[in-house]
Amino acid sequence: MGEWIGRGRKARRAYGFDEIALVPGTKTIDPEDTDCSWQLGDRKIELPIVAAAMDGVVSPSFAIAMSKLGGLAILNLEGVWTRYDDPSDILQEIANATPERATELVQKLYQPEVREDLIGRRIEEIKSAGGTAIVSSIPMKAERFGELSVEAGVDFFVVQGTVVSKYHQATNYKSVDLEAFCKKMPVPVIVGNCVTYETCLDLMSCNPDGILVGIGPGAACTTRGVLGLGVPQVTATVDCSAARDYYYKRTGRYIPIITDGGMSVGGEICKALASGSDAVVIGSAFAKAKEAPGGGFHWGMATPHRHLPRGTRIKVGTTGTLEQILLGPAHLDDGSQNLIGAIKTCMGNVGAPTLHDFQMTDIVIAPAIKTEGKVFQAAQNIGMAKKG
Amino acid sequence: MGEWIGRGRKARRAYGFDEIALVPGTKTIDPEDTDCSWQLGDRKIELPIVAAAMDGVVSPSFAIAMSKLGGLAILNLEGVWTRYDDPSDILQEIANATPERATELVQKLYQPEVREDLIGRRIEEIKSAGGTAIVSSIPMKAERFGELSVEAGVDFFVVQGTVVSKYHQATNYKSVDLEAFCKKMPVPVIVGNCVTYETCLDLMSCNPDGILVGIGPGAACTTRGVLGLGVPQVTATVDCSAARDYYYKRTGRYIPIITDGGMSVGGEICKALASGSDAVVIGSAFAKAKEAPGGGFHWGMATPHRHLPRGTRIKVGTTGTLEQILLGPAHLDDGSQNLIGAIKTCMGNVGAPTLHDFQMTDIVIAPAIKTEGKVFQAAQNIGMAKKG
Amino acid sequence: MGEWIGRGRKARRAYGFDEIALVPGTKTIDPEDTDCSWQLGDRKIELPIVAAAMDGVVSPSFAIAMSKLGGLAILNLEGVWTRYDDPSDILQEIANATPERATELVQKLYQPEVREDLIGRRIEEIKSAGGTAIVSSIPMKAERFGELSVEAGVDFFVVQGTVVSKYHQATNYKSVDLEAFCKKMPVPVIVGNCVTYETCLDLMSCNPDGILVGIGPGAACTTRGVLGLGVPQVTATVDCSAARDYYYKRTGRYIPIITDGGMSVGGEICKALASGSDAVVIGSAFAKAKEAPGGGFHWGMATPHRHLPRGTRIKVGTTGTLEQILLGPAHLDDGSQNLIGAIKTCMGNVGAPTLHDFQMTDIVIAPAIKTEGKVFQAAQNIGMAKKG
Amino acid sequence: MGEWIGRGRKARRAYGFDEIALVPGTKTIDPEDTDCSWQLGDRKIELPIVAAAMDGVVSPSFAIAMSKLGGLAILNLEGVWTRYDDPSDILQEIANATPERATELVQKLYQPEVREDLIGRRIEEIKSAGGTAIVSSIPMKAERFGELSVEAGVDFFVVQGTVVSKYHQATNYKSVDLEAFCKKMPVPVIVGNCVTYETCLDLMSCNPDGILVGIGPGAACTTRGVLGLGVPQVTATVDCSAARDYYYKRTGRYIPIITDGGMSVGGEICKALASGSDAVVIGSAFAKAKEAPGGGFHWGMATPHRHLPRGTRIKVGTTGTLEQILLGPAHLDDGSQNLIGAIKTCMGNVGAPTLHDFQMTDIVIAPAIKTEGKVFQAAQNIGMAKKG
Repeated sequence: MGEWIGRGRKARRAYGFDEIALVPGTKTIDPEDTDCSWQLGDRKIELPIVAAAMDGVVSPSFAIAMSKLGGLAILNLEGVWTRYDDPSDILQEIANATPERATELVQKLYQPEVREDLIGRRIEEIKSAGGTAIVSSIPMKAERFGELSVEAGVDFFVVQGTVVSKYHQATNYKSVDLEAFCKKMPVPVIVGNCVTYETCLDLMSCNPDGILVGIGPGAACTTRGVLGLGVPQVTATVDCSAARDYYYKRTGRYIPIITDGGMSVGGEICKALASGSDAVVIGSAFAKAKEAPGGGFHWGMATPHRHLPRGTRIKVGTTGTLEQILLGPAHLDDGSQNLIGAIKTCMGNVGAPTLHDFQMTDIVIAPAIKTEGKVFQAAQNIGMAKKG
Repeated sequence: MGEWIGRGRKARRAYGFDEIALVPGTKTIDPEDTDCSWQLGDRKIELPIVAAAMDGVVSPSFAIAMSKLGGLAILNLEGVWTRYDDPSDILQEIANATPERATELVQKLYQPEVREDLIGRRIEEIKSAGGTAIVSSIPMKAERFGELSVEAGVDFFVVQGTVVSKYHQATNYKSVDLEAFCKKMPVPVIVGNCVTYETCLDLMSCNPDGILVGIGPGAACTTRGVLGLGVPQVTATVDCSAARDYYYKRTGRYIPIITDGGMSVGGEICKALASGSDAVVIGSAFAKAKEAPGGGFHWGMATPHRHLPRGTRIKVGTTGTLEQILLGPAHLDDGSQNLIGAIKTCMGNVGAPTLHDFQMTDIVIAPAIKTEGKVFQAAQNIGMAKKG
Repeated sequence: MGEWIGRGRKARRAYGFDEIALVPGTKTIDPEDTDCSWQLGDRKIELPIVAAAMDGVVSPSFAIAMSKLGGLAILNLEGVWTRYDDPSDILQEIANATPERATELVQKLYQPEVREDLIGRRIEEIKSAGGTAIVSSIPMKAERFGELSVEAGVDFFVVQGTVVSKYHQATNYKSVDLEAFCKKMPVPVIVGNCVTYETCLDLMSCNPDGILVGIGPGAACTTRGVLGLGVPQVTATVDCSAARDYYYKRTGRYIPIITDGGMSVGGEICKALASGSDAVVIGSAFAKAKEAPGGGFHWGMATPHRHLPRGTRIKVGTTGTLEQILLGPAHLDDGSQNLIGAIKTCMGNVGAPTLHDFQMTDIVIAPAIKTEGKVFQAAQNIGMAKKG
Repeated sequence: MGEWIGRGRKARRAYGFDEIALVPGTKTIDPEDTDCSWQLGDRKIELPIVAAAMDGVVSPSFAIAMSKLGGLAILNLEGVWTRYDDPSDILQEIANATPERATELVQKLYQPEVREDLIGRRIEEIKSAGGTAIVSSIPMKAERFGELSVEAGVDFFVVQGTVVSKYHQATNYKSVDLEAFCKKMPVPVIVGNCVTYETCLDLMSCNPDGILVGIGPGAACTTRGVLGLGVPQVTATVDCSAARDYYYKRTGRYIPIITDGGMSVGGEICKALASGSDAVVIGSAFAKAKEAPGGGFHWGMATPHRHLPRGTRIKVGTTGTLEQILLGPAHLDDGSQNLIGAIKTCMGNVGAPTLHDFQMTDIVIAPAIKTEGKVFQAAQNIGMAKKG
């Protein structure tokens, strides 16, 4: 398996969302008759779309709104909400920065230390309004932040790094023992990110309640350019799904995998689920919501890195309410609104009554549609606009 | 067959028009000596190009003009002509809308219910002027609209949805029994759209007189982006042609397949026919005709969808008369005019005297020509224009 | 051989210039020590680059200049030089036309009939100045124009159509018998164009002195878009070279193949020769010469077609003298000048002392370099220019 | 091995940086625990990044600065520093030239002969300031310049041509005997460039201390366009690494290979090392340093060629100090700063403690991320900018 890329060395071809399409079924179903819920720990979650732990997307009030619509929104414990009492001015400043200055500014604004008291306060804000509290930490801080979060009544905890493995070697610090951590935590734990069968299986052996899949594919992420690292999301999702299914067969325990990054429209979300995912994590699509704290701007979690930033602040604009983006009705035809409607319509068209059926959808490798023509057209539009 | 896209999962490579080219023959024929007619039900149709059931393309008067030139133009029974007595103002309003507002406006203007009296009136307008009346309905309305259309003297009836299968399951409504419907209708019935061998065979077992092939490829269609769904047209056409040929061998009944969508120039139409199609349905190319009601604008049939629009209004401009576009002479060199001339010239060059011969043309997989250079050139032209 | 493009149907992958690169040799040679001459009929031709029979490129005086530098330039017998006594105004008018109007204007200006007296006059103009006279005609006119050309002292005669086969069937006119024609003509005859092994062998059995290879690839050609027809030039050249080599083995007669179209820079010319060609025909690269009659504009031979134009007038600008373009020194670094220097440098780098050695060069399939980056950069340059 | 590109002819698929991605490891390491040093002759070099022998990048003072940071910077012995006493005005003039005039100007400014006295002087400038002196010459001048350089106390000597082989044939001049040259030189010698297994082995048999790998891939290089020549860098690196490993197995002598050209960001450098390289040569990335003599401009070593220039002057801008580019901290998120940080982070993520481990990284063939979207976005940005 794989192609020769030179003497004595083969590489496997990996596929991304742009390169596949889903095949309509021989039977079809009314979208109203489909069910897209999934299971995280003991809880049934109505919607398979989770908002990413990014500061331009999730604030405590955004998390509350998302919970009420049936989804989850992860609050980043290393973001502005745990560094500042009131980050409104900070967020405004980031939105106002010129593209050239944005990265440096974000680096500076993230220099104040995380305040432990704010961790509890944010979780309580979410819980007291009836929301579901799900928060994320990097592995190095997981033990301490996990403890604080549980005390404050968190529902789910996420341990997330750009690249996470079960076996991390470090001379200068003690790395978290994921297996012990999952065992100790009284709430469901999600860990990630990973992209391969082997690492996914390793992580599953730590007994988490979910695995995040995806390295480097996001719209506000430059990992692939900066480090050369990453596996395109379709192949990563298919591989990790295979690990989940194998692990389930061997242990009887079904650990959902959650594709994270690289999806901004309905079609991409449908492709992730059809590739085997149980749910997806979305960033930029939600940054467009009126409820998003970024005010139409969005930046990666690795943007503040002091020595090697690997994210970028991008402008996404504000296009509608969270409800419109998630549940419709859509007034844009580009696939960025009514994401659940898109999932259910697609499930209907391929004849899948549940997400588990949807995961078996027939896929074709298909070139992006008429790229050439559209680029030309874009170029011509520019030309035309200039004349006008 | 297929490539590995991850552990334990294969996907077939599917091809679109941009990726193939037709190979000239060892014998060639004078284009004047070729015949591109085809058979629909009992009728011989001179031209293998059908105008799409889109409101920017087909009005009753357009249908009459098309009939007189030897082709067919499908009137959409759920469009503006059956919702408004006189839709001129409506069409004008759509043409005037800004790109940002267009989708929402189309959604609003399509909210009035279809008036049953207008169905008959439109068909009679076409018939009384000597035109061929061919109309389309979504599956859910097929029974009622079919009845009304037959009463009004329709020639052909089309049952069309984005994705149609023989087996549709719905709890909230009764879906049409396509087999019973085809049997009951006294005029030839075309059904679609489908893209796979299996579904095409299923639909043929309902005994229609034609099958529409194509999901998501059109210029004004965003199904692939919104839902992730679709099979590129070359592979869809080859597969459905195989179904047709197998069905013919088994039953002695030849049901033409009609490739619908994704073609805007002569070369693409030639490729569809050479891939095995008996005729093609064209939208945007005809929206450029002086006779087209859209006034140089064009929008997909799923654009008005209330919750999940999957089409877009695009500007195509008005470039010539319908006759020029269909039969020439062309005064543009981009393949958008004299479409029948292009088909016949290509048939001559590959040495195919009839469409059935043309369906056997040798194909190569070939990259789009000098895309890179052209994009650059486009970009440079912009630059140059700016300096001037 | 070939890939499945759908059920029961395979297509061969064909390659174009953008997709390959030449591999440096294990031995290298000083470019000064290489010889790039070739043989046409009994004549040794110093340079393997022939100027195309296009009105923006070749005038009688251009043909004279080209001959003196060691190359050949084909005069089009159906162009402006045989329709008008003095076409200077006509050429000026074409150069002045707006892009939108150019095709229609060219159609109109080519309506006057070809004057037989001008055929002889143009050939005599070339011969009397010491030039080599090589002229081209479409197959339908070959007999009459061939006769007139021989009378006027022509050196070589070209019978050229978009797609030419040995077996052409026409009811309304008598097509030329190429075998009889080649036998009758007292000067070497080149025929084309073709792109496949079979048709190339068929044409070789007519006993011509050269075969033109290439359908639809030129910069000013839209055949691929209008008709869907064509085989990319690398595969076409490899296939026709195989036909030539087989024919030579069987008959002892070596008929050179001449790749025609799709090359505008040195790298593309090198790739054509390394793919097996004996010489190349170039259009747009020479239209940039001060000596070219088009004044920096260029149009395809099918642009004037009355019903179905398949060429376009493009602006190429005037960048240097013919000598500079052909033999250098280059003052541009984009590969458009010193084409012979590029051939000889490349021959040196792959270690090929003669063109026959060059035809055996090792080739890799290689993606175009950093297309993505360059397109971005192009786009950014535009943006920057605008700000300035 | 290879694909059919036509009858009887196969070509191998070769891969470039844009087409691959590195796969995260099952074990990971703290970047602080990785070691990216390598060995050149007897010397341990701390950093595996070498600045290219290009006049816009390396001056004597730049070489000194680079040495102090732990890297190497090659001074071009045929550049402006050995043609002019003080080239400051020359460099300024090149920076000021318009893009259209740049190539011709560079050709003119490089016409004065190289002065032998300046060779020694430049080396002494570097040595007296405590820097490492590494200089380059074309093969034809290697004997004489090598002698002078050794006299002046050079540390390393580079013999470099666009395409270099062990067996060069020339009638008009005597070519250097690389084997004798390497034997005679008392300092380590690097030779190149080459791209194939065979030529790399041939060159290794001359017993140099390093081999440069890369023909035609650089940002300021147009060899691929002008000559059609080149092998994409991933395949070239894998092939030459295989030659190195085979040579080591056979002879016990490990000759490092150094990938040269085509890398401008951290991700590309990581991919080169992971493909098997021991170090890389970088041009344009360093031209952005405040210390670079080009003042934000950069041009290829073949740009000054009198008859066939094959490089271009490009604007790269000045974005930071050399230290920032090499060691960080980065204030840009595009991968152009903290290149060593990127290497060490990537080594950590794939679990490679040393460069020899990094050379075994698992690679996937992966399409460039969302090219389509980004091109669109670029085009839209232009459009938006225009409105503003």
